[in-house]
Amino acid sequence: MSAQIPESHKDLIAGPVCATVSTTFEDGQPQSSVIWTKLDGDNIQFSVTTTRQKAKNMEATPKVSLLAMDPQNPYRYIEVRGAVSMTQDGAYDLIDELAKLYVNKDEYYGGVAPAEQKEKEQRVIVTLTPTKVYAHG
Amino acid sequence: MSAQIPESHKDLIAGPVCATVSTTFEDGQPQSSVIWTKLDGDNIQFSVTTTRQKAKNMEATPKVSLLAMDPQNPYRYIEVRGAVSMTQDGAYDLIDELAKLYVNKDEYYGGVAPAEQKEKEQRVIVTLTPTKVYAHG
Repeated sequence: MSAQIPESHKDLIAGPVCATVSTTFEDGQPQSSVIWTKLDGDNIQFSVTTTRQKAKNMEATPKVSLLAMDPQNPYRYIEVRGAVSMTQDGAYDLIDELAKLYVNKDEYYGGVAPAEQKEKEQRVIVTLTPTKVYAHG
Repeated sequence: MSAQIPESHKDLIAGPVCATVSTTFEDGQPQSSVIWTKLDGDNIQFSVTTTRQKAKNMEATPKVSLLAMDPQNPYRYIEVRGAVSMTQDGAYDLIDELAKLYVNKDEYYGGVAPAEQKEKEQRVIVTLTPTKVYAHG
């Protein structure tokens, strides 16, 4: 079972539109946070550090829902549900690419976060493979 | 355990700012959608019809996460987690109040949705009692 992101709403994923990603605690409580996203073919990529609650939740339950809303028109939005996988490969290239796209900084560490923070945390790429897509507006 | 919405971010809940609410399927898959919200003291209210997936999810797992982002500045946002309860009492007053606030229609049915739809669905008020609040920016 897979689903595709329609052309009409790809701009909301390709950015720079901040999206909301939701994960689940083991007791069923959802958790949401704001992320930068990248469209990677039919998949969506975003970046997270391994100590964040959403990373822990995705380790236990590798399923998310992502919702991206047009800041100019909240009735044009897309929800993407699916399974996620996480990898360290290329994680620092991705966060630099996202920092350039979203806040026009050439490097995330030293440009957005303190440079010394890079040594203190492990960053991973999360890849979301859509199983359900709902586009509105 | 309860948590309060800080004065600095109450405007994002009091509207008219469309928020993202997330619920959980029984298999742990999160689901997200766009809602209108009302600040009710320390709680948050929103409206849903009983046939919607999020209503079914909340019946089984009465816990949500709500994220409201400033459309002018996505780095100013608030996440509110907590338990929800649902009631039919006043549900049609609330949806009219929200329609007025968000899209300047005096009545939801006949102004936003077709008038005849009112007889076909049951609307409820969802009240979210915050247990965890994270305000950013």
